[in-house]
Amino acid sequence: MKNRVLTGDRVTGKLHLGHYAGSLKNRVALQEEHECFVMLADVQALTTHFERSELISCSLKEMALDYLAAGIDPNKTSIFIQSMVPEIAELTMFFSMLVTVNTLRHNPTVKAESKGAGLDELYYGFLGYPVSQAADIAFCKATLIPVGEDQLPHLELARKVVRRFNELYKPVLVEPQALISEVPRLVGTDGEAKMSKSLGNAIELDCSAEELALKLRKAKTDPARIHKNDPGHPDICPIYAYHGAFRPEGAVEIRENCEAGTIGCSACKEKLRLALEGLLAPMRERRVDYAARPRDIDDILQAGTAEVRRIAAVTMGEVREAMGLDYFGRSR
Amino acid sequence: MKNRVLTGDRVTGKLHLGHYAGSLKNRVALQEEHECFVMLADVQALTTHFERSELISCSLKEMALDYLAAGIDPNKTSIFIQSMVPEIAELTMFFSMLVTVNTLRHNPTVKAESKGAGLDELYYGFLGYPVSQAADIAFCKATLIPVGEDQLPHLELARKVVRRFNELYKPVLVEPQALISEVPRLVGTDGEAKMSKSLGNAIELDCSAEELALKLRKAKTDPARIHKNDPGHPDICPIYAYHGAFRPEGAVEIRENCEAGTIGCSACKEKLRLALEGLLAPMRERRVDYAARPRDIDDILQAGTAEVRRIAAVTMGEVREAMGLDYFGRSR
Ligand code: SF4
Ligand code: SF4
Repeated sequence: MKNRVLTGDRVTGKLHLGHYAGSLKNRVALQEEHECFVMLADVQALTTHFERSELISCSLKEMALDYLAAGIDPNKTSIFIQSMVPEIAELTMFFSMLVTVNTLRHNPTVKAESKGAGLDELYYGFLGYPVSQAADIAFCKATLIPVGEDQLPHLELARKVVRRFNELYKPVLVEPQALISEVPRLVGTDGEAKMSKSLGNAIELDCSAEELALKLRKAKTDPARIHKNDPGHPDICPIYAYHGAFRPEGAVEIRENCEAGTIGCSACKEKLRLALEGLLAPMRERRVDYAARPRDIDDILQAGTAEVRRIAAVTMGEVREAMGLDYFGRSR
Repeated sequence: MKNRVLTGDRVTGKLHLGHYAGSLKNRVALQEEHECFVMLADVQALTTHFERSELISCSLKEMALDYLAAGIDPNKTSIFIQSMVPEIAELTMFFSMLVTVNTLRHNPTVKAESKGAGLDELYYGFLGYPVSQAADIAFCKATLIPVGEDQLPHLELARKVVRRFNELYKPVLVEPQALISEVPRLVGTDGEAKMSKSLGNAIELDCSAEELALKLRKAKTDPARIHKNDPGHPDICPIYAYHGAFRPEGAVEIRENCEAGTIGCSACKEKLRLALEGLLAPMRERRVDYAARPRDIDDILQAGTAEVRRIAAVTMGEVREAMGLDYFGRSR
């Protein structure tokens, strides 16, 4: 069966290899089989970036370019802008009545993210993040949501809200299924648990061949290896993690050679560099191609958003009817 | 200077004399001087009535009829339906990022109302009531908000949110002023502090002459008065309160006669009944007139909502521009 798949990213900066391994690659594959929507989540980006909203406006089209460069095909996937779909805000308002403050406060993801975002206080919109995420999923009747393990509590909440709505009013919304991603979070080049632009340990998708080489050269490896034939510990080495993520066919050999001390870190990095160049070079080409016609990117985003709003209008008509809030028959 | 005045009611049932004395009368006067908007707050009604949303749909047009009957003139006042203005939901989302959970939890009005609504738990949407109220006020750039003393904390929060937005982005929103209503809350016919449909102590605006007479006959008076010439205590008598609210010119005389024991309660009630008949009879006439042409009521609500959406579109264009979320120039 063809699923409707919703994914998206908070609009807070350019995408990097962690995004590619964690979701973009998967999206490029999914669009061959399913009806796909990718949301540029600018409203949700405000939950942490309301004081730096200029970052959102600067990043939005860069991210769209990242998507297109990475192989998201606008003929197969609708890329849309969250703030341009008012139906999401409307559904968020309705869902707000169905979720208790305690449920949100006890959501482990909200807790962790609130700390992580470095906000001094818990803001109302931040607390409601999962409510708005439920609306993102429900307004377009997505059936399949690719998520990491850490995002499962959010999806569970979305499912609960949809069930509650369907029971209370009428079963017009669709309970989404999780498609749990197998790819673990990608480590940073400094060995930190998470690749992140703000930590300065990311390899951006738009980096040049020279930048890539430099970042790999500077990347941490097993610090216990002083000499080329010291036995290494690939499990604590980010380079090994990247082999696993981007060059899995060669990873076993790397492990064996590293542990046996029969490959030097420079040679190991060079093999990775070649593989990553093979991945990033065609992206660079597509990027140059798209960047030369910014109007087309605007068109793609506007067409994707228009497509999504057609679906949103149908859903919201059903939602209003179910709740009894359609006062004039077809009200809008 | 001509102000833009916003008022409204949660759509939870027909209006009664308490609404008339507390706000409707004032609105009818204000529309002569100012640009007036009256909001049928169906989304906010959901904060307490999400499990009984059919009550909202049943009440909405009844309430519109109450407005028109009471003298709200659709040529002077735009009556609009909250759920049909998606811009309010959008602005609520943006405002959600600017208010902390603690600010909302400490708002005395939210606390009191949460208890009063008899909800077993605090819902997310209920907690955010003042945020959505701030959006109601800001989206239409209302300058003057008639409020009772008890609603002042809400308005103060709205002013704070508007200031915060204007400082953080650009000064495009208008900080509203309070127009504090002098009329105290009207007591119920049973002497309870508040006239309320759900307490069964209300005199509805659409009651017939017979119903009015019956309700007044059954209304409590000073229980210490057994005989007609026992001295009475008008300050604990709802009938005296109604004289004060609806027949102020005769209230001093009533007080004197009551305290002197020179008027019986029946005669006192009869004077009030005549005054209330004088108020309600023309309302009944207008009601019959409008009720005979339901299409016109639909037209009035749709025209009022369309008028408000024109204003909303302008405001939201400025809001997006101020926040940097206008990605394609004129985006919609
Ligand atoms: S050989 Fe490769 S996997 Fe082993 S420590 Fe060096 S860079 Fe890491
Ligand atoms: S005379 Fe009038 S004011 Fe006095 S107790 Fe009777 S009803 Fe009330």
